[in-house]
Amino acid sequence: MVSQVKLYDTTLRDGTQGEGISLSVDDKLKIARKLDQLGVKYIEGGWPGSNPKDMNFFEEAKKLSLESAVVTAFGSTRKPGVTAENDPNLQKILESEVEAVAIFGKSWDFHVEKALQTSLDENISMIYDSVRFLKEKGMEVIFDAEHFFDGYKHNRDYALKALTAAEEAGADCLVLCDTNGGSLPSEIAGILDVVHACTTIPTGIHCHNDGELAVANTLEAVKAGAEHVQGTINGYGERCGNANLISIIPNLQLKMGIPCLNDEKISQLTETAVYVHELANQTPPDSQPFTGKSAFAHKGGMHVSAVLKHPETYEHIEPETIGNERRVLVSELSGQSNLMFKAEELGIPLDKTDPAVKDIMEKMKQMEHKGYQYEAAEASFELLIRNGLGENHDYFHLDHFKIIAEKEKEGAISTEALVKMDINGEKVMTAAEGNGPVNALDFALRKTIGEFYPLVHEMYLSDYKVRVLDEAEATASTVRVLIESSDGKETWSTIGVSGNLVEASWQALVDSIRFYFMKHSDRLQKLDAQPVHPGPGLQNH
Amino acid sequence: MVSQVKLYDTTLRDGTQGEGISLSVDDKLKIARKLDQLGVKYIEGGWPGSNPKDMNFFEEAKKLSLESAVVTAFGSTRKPGVTAENDPNLQKILESEVEAVAIFGKSWDFHVEKALQTSLDENISMIYDSVRFLKEKGMEVIFDAEHFFDGYKHNRDYALKALTAAEEAGADCLVLCDTNGGSLPSEIAGILDVVHACTTIPTGIHCHNDGELAVANTLEAVKAGAEHVQGTINGYGERCGNANLISIIPNLQLKMGIPCLNDEKISQLTETAVYVHELANQTPPDSQPFTGKSAFAHKGGMHVSAVLKHPETYEHIEPETIGNERRVLVSELSGQSNLMFKAEELGIPLDKTDPAVKDIMEKMKQMEHKGYQYEAAEASFELLIRNGLGENHDYFHLDHFKIIAEKEKEGAISTEALVKMDINGEKVMTAAEGNGPVNALDFALRKTIGEFYPLVHEMYLSDYKVRVLDEAEATASTVRVLIESSDGKETWSTIGVSGNLVEASWQALVDSIRFYFMKHSDRLQKLDAQPVHPGPGLQNH
Repeated sequence: MVSQVKLYDTTLRDGTQGEGISLSVDDKLKIARKLDQLGVKYIEGGWPGSNPKDMNFFEEAKKLSLESAVVTAFGSTRKPGVTAENDPNLQKILESEVEAVAIFGKSWDFHVEKALQTSLDENISMIYDSVRFLKEKGMEVIFDAEHFFDGYKHNRDYALKALTAAEEAGADCLVLCDTNGGSLPSEIAGILDVVHACTTIPTGIHCHNDGELAVANTLEAVKAGAEHVQGTINGYGERCGNANLISIIPNLQLKMGIPCLNDEKISQLTETAVYVHELANQTPPDSQPFTGKSAFAHKGGMHVSAVLKHPETYEHIEPETIGNERRVLVSELSGQSNLMFKAEELGIPLDKTDPAVKDIMEKMKQMEHKGYQYEAAEASFELLIRNGLGENHDYFHLDHFKIIAEKEKEGAISTEALVKMDINGEKVMTAAEGNGPVNALDFALRKTIGEFYPLVHEMYLSDYKVRVLDEAEATASTVRVLIESSDGKETWSTIGVSGNLVEASWQALVDSIRFYFMKHSDRLQKLDAQPVHPGPGLQNH
Repeated sequence: MVSQVKLYDTTLRDGTQGEGISLSVDDKLKIARKLDQLGVKYIEGGWPGSNPKDMNFFEEAKKLSLESAVVTAFGSTRKPGVTAENDPNLQKILESEVEAVAIFGKSWDFHVEKALQTSLDENISMIYDSVRFLKEKGMEVIFDAEHFFDGYKHNRDYALKALTAAEEAGADCLVLCDTNGGSLPSEIAGILDVVHACTTIPTGIHCHNDGELAVANTLEAVKAGAEHVQGTINGYGERCGNANLISIIPNLQLKMGIPCLNDEKISQLTETAVYVHELANQTPPDSQPFTGKSAFAHKGGMHVSAVLKHPETYEHIEPETIGNERRVLVSELSGQSNLMFKAEELGIPLDKTDPAVKDIMEKMKQMEHKGYQYEAAEASFELLIRNGLGENHDYFHLDHFKIIAEKEKEGAISTEALVKMDINGEKVMTAAEGNGPVNALDFALRKTIGEFYPLVHEMYLSDYKVRVLDEAEATASTVRVLIESSDGKETWSTIGVSGNLVEASWQALVDSIRFYFMKHSDRLQKLDAQPVHPGPGLQNH
């Protein structure tokens, strides 16, 4: 077996091929920085020839000053019938000014003839010429042999010929791709053994998850000698996704003893998984192996008492190793340690013996029972703790609000909100319209508060999520609203839960403003009182 | 390798241990019927000793008259220090009156001493006695060796002794459980070889997905001779879930050539997966291997043209084999065949050459572009087609509605709706309150229509789902509302999409009533006109 593997992340390229995954250039830069912090060796940033967004990423990525990761570009071999020097695709790769590149070429004869519609010999030349050209430009060249396993099964000699062409042209690594994701773990080792008998440079593996076997196939390949592993964070990718690095890393490092990351870095795994889910706007699956919220959750009875005494009775690894945590779903004990742990993280000094801690615990449990989930709403959680400690961050109070949604015949719906607030005894009232009840309420609330505290105009809602907690009861069910707010630099999340969507949204909106005012209390200037304009005056707002 | 495997489904027992998975007795009966139709050999219904709901299931399951599946019960070996005859747990199994039972016993010495806190010898007696007792009662007994792989690695002799005790007591099958889900595919075959050298009866495999390897580990076990496979539909289960039968079945049958189901049954796989997701109230993951909506979805460019000519270029199996379908995300061609296919399913005669088909196609594309997704809303889809064919199912029209949500200080929020409808030229108006804007609107709408068409009182909303389509734009994003309605016998789903939550909900509400009226037009009696009560009259409603 190999002594260590090089991780090659393609979340930013193959991952974005997944249906519903869309990342802005800014998201991609943030993820690149996170991957670098985690200690991934290569970060594939995109395909410079395919769209201007990817080229823009490479431009911006130069300014990231990454610790150790190498940003790589992706591209295809030259087109049939042109020289490598004149191929626009390869030119774009040079323009991206990366040090390393992954070039994919066909290794399945069927694909060459049917999809590419060129001759088998020309395809071999395309591989050779493209690798040689990029090597001459001084780049590290990784050759991705597309459909290698299918190609091998249909025409073994040709598939191997594609690899040796890349090797002879100077490639640094030969990556065997299971592009259609249909291979079985039991097939991998035999095929890699043959490859290793025919080639001398390092090999890599790139799997897809169409058979729910991408992680297993990757582990089998490493066991058979592959030194380079391609995959994506959380397994994002086309169809059923790519091999999931978040599962591959701990399997390799903690179980097979093959280092991928520094020991202290692997504890960032859970945070990395959740961070990427959030940026990609995906709900983190509770049951995600290793990093999911349920991955180390134990239900009542025998399991719990056994786990509390000897965690290894029902845990395959220690959750802390990868930055996850044990959750004992019914235990009275887990709550307090969680609370102390979180408070420390938030920088709030909390003394276990302070009677307030017991009250906060009690409040927290009541709220969680109602459906509040503070993992995803740290700003609301911090307010809960600080209120429990006697701090007061009620900068404003509701006098009343009214939302009116109206529709006439086939006409467009109108939704308007009127909000009257009590700000230190002074009443102020405005109205606004929006494209939904909550949108209108949000606008009106911030307009109203803004009359006294202009600081509120520096923040805005950046995300709004509704989850129905008990869907079985139809429109009468409990809803949980999560709001993310931002001031362009920082973001913070707040929560509201209620049987009424408007009430739940209101709670989260109010928390988001209170939190911002609390954090920026030094800049919280209050303007002079404005009179409440009754009647027509409302039109001015 | 074995010539076929027996599938043992534990969705109804181990599956419900998954966080967030909760099934009523009625849900469980429906799933049991579906599993029987699919051709699963064993259906584990629950643990009769653990709760009254499970016992109730066994009572009701007797009336199901299943085609071929055997309903089984789950239970533990007798407690330390009591005879099998006097063990309440085993008594409950007898009371469930099933023909087959899976009894789990400890095979990891560490667990016996630390969790069970009894002697190693007593545990072996517990296994022997419990299996013998149940065999004497004439039952088929499957022995689940809990933590077998961990036990084997820590104390191989003891783990094997647990198996031989069960065999000697007359067990029909020895199931090796990877209870903590931490085993690697490369470990499985070697361990099974040793087991097969020490035992003579059939073996089985039960895996968990903590390492994202449950499917691979199961396949490896079958390759090494396991004849019995335990798992759950969609991989539901505690922590990261159980081995996913939905992926195991096609891998075994289509790739490894080991029959699990009749050939015509495997095409029900996608329908079964989605059906169970719906009953368990889980959003089917688009990227689920084999049966997900994205599993055979191809994006533009080279992929699409290659796939249309030669699907095997980017598909590991034919999607139709398992009842899924290819989706060509940008193709103009895929739409029409989908439409003809769906219309046929719904029993609507549609002629490809009818010019209306082109118009319906056009409309459908426009709607899908806006975010309508008809897969999950067949009633709205049927209305779209029938409208396109010139049928008129507009039994009522909106004159106007108004929703008012009001909150004063810390008081509860009130949400009220007023609806005025035009029913064949007659105006009628009522109002209602609800615990949210949509809930109030729903009540008011049905009260209003009910003044003319009492049929509307036979139906009710049974499910309401909101999904934010573009979460990045916060409260200003597009929302998709899915409504499921029921009359206690049939259910049907409708959809609405809008930038405004109220508008989207309104569309889905209106469709749901129109659909019901269309289907029951023979019973649609219209009462005499009622005058519209202005002002105070509203209080009567």
